[in-house]
This record gives sequence, C-alpha cells and structure tokens, in this order.
Amino acid sequence: MSTPDLYVQMGITQWKLQTGRATALIDKLSDEQLSKEIAPGKNRGSYIIGHLIAVHDAMNTILGTGERQFARLDDTYLKNPDRLGEEEISLPLLRQYWQQVHQQLASAFGNLVPEEWFKRHNAMTEEDFTNDPGRNKLSVLLNRAGHLAYHLGQLQLLK
Amino acid sequence: MSTPDLYVQMGITQWKLQTGRATALIDKLSDEQLSKEIAPGKNRGSYIIGHLIAVHDAMNTILGTGERQFARLDDTYLKNPDRLGEEEISLPLLRQYWQQVHQQLASAFGNLVPEEWFKRHNAMTEEDFTNDPGRNKLSVLLNRAGHLAYHLGQLQLLK
Repeated sequence: MSTPDLYVQMGITQWKLQTGRATALIDKLSDEQLSKEIAPGKNRGSYIIGHLIAVHDAMNTILGTGERQFARLDDTYLKNPDRLGEEEISLPLLRQYWQQVHQQLASAFGNLVPEEWFKRHNAMTEEDFTNDPGRNKLSVLLNRAGHLAYHLGQLQLLK
Repeated sequence: MSTPDLYVQMGITQWKLQTGRATALIDKLSDEQLSKEIAPGKNRGSYIIGHLIAVHDAMNTILGTGERQFARLDDTYLKNPDRLGEEEISLPLLRQYWQQVHQQLASAFGNLVPEEWFKRHNAMTEEDFTNDPGRNKLSVLLNRAGHLAYHLGQLQLLK
C-alpha cells in the first residue's frame, strides 16, 4: 500500500517525532542549563532554541501556511551568531514562543490536504520544480525535521 | 504529482543528504580531532563514528538488504557507552568501514524497487504493520537519517 496520504503521514510523523523529543528535552532542562554553552566556546542552549523558533516560524512563508509570528527573532537568532544579535529574548519567553510556533504549525499542517504537500514550495521557481518535483512542500518538512534533529543532538549535551 | 517513485526518491534524498554531510565532515576532521570528546565528559568523535557504522550496518537486517559486515562493532559502539567496550577500532579502520558500509547500502538501496520500500520492515510483526502501514522500510530510512543528523550536530562541535 502506498498513497499520497501515507507519504504525508510519514513525513508528519518524522516532524512530530523530532519536535516531540525536542519539547520534552527543553521542558526538562532548567533556564540555568539552557543558558550554558553546549560545549566550550559554542552556542548557548538559549541561542539554539531561538534559532529553531525562527527557522520553524519561517516555514510558514515557504509552505504558505500563514503569517510569521516571530520574524523579530531573525536578527539575533538567524542572521547573527550567538552573542552578536541586538535583542536577546528571555528563556521564559523563548519557552512560550516555542509552544506557540509548534501549536500554530501543527494546526496549519492539519489543514493542508495531501495534494498540497506535493506542490512547489515558495522558495523555488516553477522551472526548478518541473525539473525536480521531489523539492515539494513535504521535502521542506523532512529537511526541517533533519535540521531539528541536528540541533537536538547538541541540546542533549546540556543534560 | 505524487507517486511511490517520487516518495522513495525523497526518502533516499534525505539519507544521501545526511550521509554526504557526515562524510564530508569526517573527511575534514583529523584523527586527533576525532579522538576528542564532543564536549567535556561526553562521547568521543571516534565512538560516535563507530556507533553510526554499527547502526547503519544493522539496517541491512531490518531492511533485508544483505548480511551485516560490521556486527563485531556492536559490543563496543552500540551495547556499551564510550570507553566501556571491549575492542576499540582504530580511526583509520573506522574511516574505511564508514566508506564500506555506505557504499554497500547505496548499492543495496539502488536495487530495491519502490514497492519494496512500502513493505513491512523486519523488526515488526505483520499485525503491527496492518495497523500502521506508515511503519514500512522507508520509515526506517527516514528515522536513520534523523538519527544521523542528531549525531552530525555533535560531530560538528569537533571542528
């Protein structure tokens, strides 16, 4: 058995798996732990969380699932390395944004019909998509799940 | 457009993306760098590489793609934490095994027809699969790509 519904379900399963693990870990770590560097001279946990919120929020633009809520995090957590951004967000607020962005995405994903996931995403041209139909919205979801797993392996070091 | 071929291609793209990134990073890191801990008191780079070789080699059993080549790494790199295994493999040999296991898997994956990826994998029962057909061989590939991304985020700290 293989249907569009099944593929979409498999992609969303990967996303939920990684976001679920990350949320459980972040909930377990104290503000003090998250303020520390994952390794000497490397990013702090709080920076990684802000970075993930900004990247996940930006998925709305790429997938066409809604307006961004947290674009103001881009400067500090996406465009600049840790400690060089203009405005740092407190950990209680980062925790709140983390919940908000994932709730909003879960709701938006629930409203996308399977066929929509196989359409072109908004960060590529119609021509590129014709040449490689594998670069659809579902591939963005899989890529972001992989990106989250990458940073989850780092956050894990704060335990 | 959504076909089994396309979805399999998307899954293999994720796998190639993560293995390609990991291979490039490992090739760039010296034996000395890979002998270090990713963070104080955490796993050494060499342990993570051995762990990934063992996990990827074991995919052959789960996917039915061939005999395992590196089962002797399981004790040190899978069943035991870093430094408690019986037999440590040298970094030159780990680098060689890394190439071998990924070449073998790439070849095996190239021989699997798309429908095969949507069949039950060998680590679950027929009944479980009937209840959740999303837990097929392709889901194993996506899970392992995520697992690799997790450890890649850690190896990156050795740079």
